Amino acid sequence: MRISFIGSGNVATHLALAFYGCGHVVEQVWSRNIDHANLLAARVEAQPVSDLGKLLGNADAYILAIPDDALFELAGDLRLGNALLLHTSGATPIEVLKHCSTRYGVLWAPQSFVRDAAMDYSELPFCIEGSDPKAEEEIAALAGTVSSHIYRTSLGQRQYLHLAAVFVNNFTNGLYAVAQQVCREQDVPFEILYPIIQTTARKAQWGDVRYQLTGPAVRNDRKTIDAHRRLLAHDKQMLEVYDLMTELVQKIKHG
Amino acid sequence: MRISFIGSGNVATHLALAFYGCGHVVEQVWSRNIDHANLLAARVEAQPVSDLGKLLGNADAYILAIPDDALFELAGDLRLGNALLLHTSGATPIEVLKHCSTRYGVLWAPQSFVRDAAMDYSELPFCIEGSDPKAEEEIAALAGTVSSHIYRTSLGQRQYLHLAAVFVNNFTNGLYAVAQQVCREQDVPFEILYPIIQTTARKAQWGDVRYQLTGPAVRNDRKTIDAHRRLLAHDKQMLEVYDLMTELVQKIKHG
Repeated sequence: MRISFIGSGNVATHLALAFYGCGHVVEQVWSRNIDHANLLAARVEAQPVSDLGKLLGNADAYILAIPDDALFELAGDLRLGNALLLHTSGATPIEVLKHCSTRYGVLWAPQSFVRDAAMDYSELPFCIEGSDPKAEEEIAALAGTVSSHIYRTSLGQRQYLHLAAVFVNNFTNGLYAVAQQVCREQDVPFEILYPIIQTTARKAQWGDVRYQLTGPAVRNDRKTIDAHRRLLAHDKQMLEVYDLMTELVQKIKHG
Repeated sequence: MRISFIGSGNVATHLALAFYGCGHVVEQVWSRNIDHANLLAARVEAQPVSDLGKLLGNADAYILAIPDDALFELAGDLRLGNALLLHTSGATPIEVLKHCSTRYGVLWAPQSFVRDAAMDYSELPFCIEGSDPKAEEEIAALAGTVSSHIYRTSLGQRQYLHLAAVFVNNFTNGLYAVAQQVCREQDVPFEILYPIIQTTARKAQWGDVRYQLTGPAVRNDRKTIDAHRRLLAHDKQMLEVYDLMTELVQKIKHG
């Protein structure tokens, strides 16, 4: 298929590379900033454009990979006739695109993209939804050329998945950052914790995570919990996180 | 070396397998429950015992791998003369062993052990401390036969590492469990989030974790944060976790 990308950030870059790598033709890359459009266009043999008016109408699909706010704004100006138009947002209804095309939908990959890191796209999960069953079939087929992990999700399911992704990515990162700060303050290398971080993540794939829950909170080992609370006494916010996560873990484990 | 193990749980099992696998002789395995002692002893060609009085004095090292409470209790009865005696607790001072032997210390592996899962012990980190410099050298040499990741840590450093491990293991597991519950309630497979969980864990090894922090909290994207809060409105505790982690992430990122 001939695909044009609207956007040139992390998501646009990885999706363009993924589709280009599977043999699709990337027709054009649009960015408000022509330098950004150039960077991505050069990697996928596409034409860079910075004027929406220069978007050609001959692509089979247009993939919008821009921040949510920009999506709402840009959708007001975009008219693509009958081309398949997809946004890539976990949180946004597909109806934002209803005035832009007769066939539209979403192609959302819940992943944490890093612009310059190589990735195995065949493992990428895609949550899709189409404006009608035929559009949804086309989206599934298109996504299926990259990966076999295609999930048809409703708006509600996608929005809750987006929320769940915040827990396992942004908030988990926050916990890692706390641990790293503790290590820094104690002058011990954070790398000591690399193996337990990786093991914990791997075990999340073993079924019901409640069974993986261990530690002083689950055992309600007050002696250790109190000792930890004393170590954190100098930082009110960390102590609050410690207490709330302890309660949460106990509630999840014991209902 | 000839090593005896006091304890037969997860930690004892993995450490016994690790040392046995490196060519050490596992002399005896003690457990209050002889069936448990039998299980581990059979795997490492050791003699099972359930009576502390039957522990022979001819081992070069004794490794205590029992819960912290039991450690304090058992240390009152244990008299091993000059044998090297080690406990495996992240939170406990080595002095708990001072009446048991003239040479003692700690051999703590901050890892989440699962009894029946095979592991690559050469990647296992060990935090060690000895009752005197010579004992510490011996502990380092012994641990060094299993892994090259040996860290000499003070009691304070070890206790803070133990706390940090609770954040990256138990609390991270709590966040995974929340995400899994959200998926269950929405009838979407949790496996959709496996790739982002693994990526997030891998990125923890990329240096300063603060640079990895992304998402609505970091961008202070109130629209998305408010949408997420509405999705969680039915669960007061999850909402509290959401708010506190959002604040924490913002504070860590922006100081």
